[in-house]
Amino acid sequence: MITTDILIIGAGPTGLFAVFEAGLLKMKCHLIDALPQPGGQLAELYPKKPIFDIPGYPEVLAGDLVTNLMNQIKQFQPGFTLGETAETIDKQEDGTFIVTTNKGTQHHAKAVAIAGGLGTFQPRKPIIPNIELFEEKGIEYFVKDPEQFRDKKIVIAGGGDSALDWSIFLSEVASSVTLVHRRNEFRGALDSVEKVQELKAKGKISLITPAEVVALKGDEHLQSVTIEKADETVSLDVDYFIPLFGLTPKLGPIANWGLEIEKNAIKVNNALDYQTNVEGIYAIGDVNIYPGKLKLILCGFHEATLMCQSVYNRINPGKRYVLKYTTVSGVDGFDGSRKEAEKAVVKSID
Amino acid sequence: MITTDILIIGAGPTGLFAVFEAGLLKMKCHLIDALPQPGGQLAELYPKKPIFDIPGYPEVLAGDLVTNLMNQIKQFQPGFTLGETAETIDKQEDGTFIVTTNKGTQHHAKAVAIAGGLGTFQPRKPIIPNIELFEEKGIEYFVKDPEQFRDKKIVIAGGGDSALDWSIFLSEVASSVTLVHRRNEFRGALDSVEKVQELKAKGKISLITPAEVVALKGDEHLQSVTIEKADETVSLDVDYFIPLFGLTPKLGPIANWGLEIEKNAIKVNNALDYQTNVEGIYAIGDVNIYPGKLKLILCGFHEATLMCQSVYNRINPGKRYVLKYTTVSGVDGFDGSRKEAEKAVVKSID
Ligand SMILES: Cc1cc2nc3c(=O)[nH]c(=O)nc-3n(C[C@H](O)[C@H](O)[C@H](O)COP(=O)(O)OP(=O)(O)OC[C@H]3O[C@@H](n4cnc5c(N)ncnc54)[C@H](O)[C@@H]3O)c2cc1C
Ligand SMILES: Cc1cc2nc3c(=O)[nH]c(=O)nc-3n(C[C@H](O)[C@H](O)[C@H](O)COP(=O)(O)OP(=O)(O)OC[C@H]3O[C@@H](n4cnc5c(N)ncnc54)[C@H](O)[C@@H]3O)c2cc1C
Repeated sequence: MITTDILIIGAGPTGLFAVFEAGLLKMKCHLIDALPQPGGQLAELYPKKPIFDIPGYPEVLAGDLVTNLMNQIKQFQPGFTLGETAETIDKQEDGTFIVTTNKGTQHHAKAVAIAGGLGTFQPRKPIIPNIELFEEKGIEYFVKDPEQFRDKKIVIAGGGDSALDWSIFLSEVASSVTLVHRRNEFRGALDSVEKVQELKAKGKISLITPAEVVALKGDEHLQSVTIEKADETVSLDVDYFIPLFGLTPKLGPIANWGLEIEKNAIKVNNALDYQTNVEGIYAIGDVNIYPGKLKLILCGFHEATLMCQSVYNRINPGKRYVLKYTTVSGVDGFDGSRKEAEKAVVKSID
Repeated sequence: MITTDILIIGAGPTGLFAVFEAGLLKMKCHLIDALPQPGGQLAELYPKKPIFDIPGYPEVLAGDLVTNLMNQIKQFQPGFTLGETAETIDKQEDGTFIVTTNKGTQHHAKAVAIAGGLGTFQPRKPIIPNIELFEEKGIEYFVKDPEQFRDKKIVIAGGGDSALDWSIFLSEVASSVTLVHRRNEFRGALDSVEKVQELKAKGKISLITPAEVVALKGDEHLQSVTIEKADETVSLDVDYFIPLFGLTPKLGPIANWGLEIEKNAIKVNNALDYQTNVEGIYAIGDVNIYPGKLKLILCGFHEATLMCQSVYNRINPGKRYVLKYTTVSGVDGFDGSRKEAEKAVVKSID
């Protein structure tokens, strides 16, 4: 059983920054995310795109913002349960919570902050007979760990950035990469398209277009895919088939936790601390709703900060809290590190 | 008469970022600040100190954050009335406002956002007979425009960073700089103390310690100061005397605008849009108060954002607003500039 002060569900920007604010108040955090990496929408949907409305950043790439947030919270040593979906929550008699994932991992916390964004990302699955039979047996909708594909024969399907970028990346890892797309035209960043063109010329990526994967064969594990082109059908031996047709978010299991839901989001008390109708469960960032709510990154940062104050009061009843400026008091990491402004010297001049 | 959509009182980080969010909604802003430069507390009190709790910045110097915010909002061409204090506000019959400064400058706006922080900074004045007589006639508590002191004889009093830093800076501008301090020891950044030491050795700064300015003489304008040392009293001919003994913030004129005040701050409706008890007047950042309020920079950013949405609805009644992501829609400056993510290409690979 993993134990922590605040269990954060969702490692998007909101959940990540909550670790920092909790750390300033000496509370430990653990994060669960269904995705294999932290960063939420920023890391999964648009890592290489610039954001222009992060305060103090005239421009920052989404992926860089995630990296910066990870650096900022490092000193507070957050725990991560990645690639698992928080499925059930049980409030204990003492007011603490146990949250269990789809893989059975249990987490025990004094408070729960749901920072689940638009929910878990569900892959758009191509319509191919029996596809479910081979899921996790040769079919992967996410690249969780590229090493899984080392020296394997893989087929990737799709025509967007994910399909292009993973084809490029895995061309160095897999023994063969075949990219299948319904059209001749790809839609993505210019340099990705050009890179695939180049790797194709070098024989590192095979391209089959316009074409579609129409059948899957195998015993226990996927063994071959059938690809239909305009006027021929080919069968290809493969170890893995990775269809990358985009993701749609779904609130998911959280919807059944007895929380008040409105427009696919969790109602919170924005006049105070972003707590839900269940005491001790908070909802921050894109996942919550209140009058005037804006689904913006900078709003999640504020909500995370006020949530942490409220949890602090919950965990430390009666203890008076005095706000400290990081500039004045410095930041003490749980790893023994300390950040602080240079101290003024008191020195005579002669 | 200066006219604008949102008149922002206070050019601290909160007021500055409001310009950006307003700009995204095509609303123009004008800022008034009593200080000679934008940046509020960050620029006036701790420009060279690091802040550790700006989301996405593991560390940023306060002065750099201000510079970044100024760059971020540049494209929305905010107007500035600097070095003037907003003194009176008059609500017009049509619901717009006229705000007048202590120097009589008038501003006409559809909405007013008070981002006044802890208020205007009042200099701690040394107790010297007749000091008020010479204010703005040789006595300056702020360095508003260094050029004012070009080729002048100046005396600076104080023992902290401001006194040290302005002595250093003005040693290149004034014809002579004398620094007077009650003690031999100065309290400030090590390199400032060392720099003053060096300039003293070079004869660019005269140092008189431990000593105090005890009298002022002059006709219309200050002509000399009397400096008392342990066992002698000297009189020095000067053009300017600049006492730098720190600043204390005072809510100031805003306190008399008929707004609900609590603990020296303006009560707002945090459950919706940070509006005050007067429709059309908002209060954001350190200047406001509500249950759970934290006087932090990142909270001001969120409050500014929600305030802008509310003003948008006020100015454009009935118009439906759909949130646009900067990453997806780009940012169109009022200066004709455009920032946007690189467009995806649609390109075939052959
Ligand atoms: C293309 C695009 C451009 C954008 N541009 C901007 C912009 O310019 N400015 C801006 O402010 N915002 C922008 N946004 C919105 C911004 O990305 C979101 O506001 C932000 O990601 C919300 O952060 P979050 O941490 O609340 O949630 P998310 O980033 O959505 O992260 C939530 C995380 O929770 C996880 N999760 C959910 N449920 C569970 C569960 N049950 N178990 C385990 N994990 C779970 C998800 O896997 C996900 O990783 C943009 C969004 C998109 C898609
Ligand atoms: C030493 C120190 C360290 C700090 N460290 C941190 C930190 O690490 N993290 C953090 O988040 N916060 C920190 N803070 C607090 C932070 O500086 C404030 O939260 C922030 O400045 C508030 O921004 P603001 O724009 O609301 O107000 P301010 O920065 O106070 O700006 C308000 C402006 O309004 C002007 N004004 C007021 N009334 C009038 C009027 N009637 N007419 C014209 N102008 C007017 C003032 O001149 C001022 O420039 C620190 C503060 C100090 C002093």
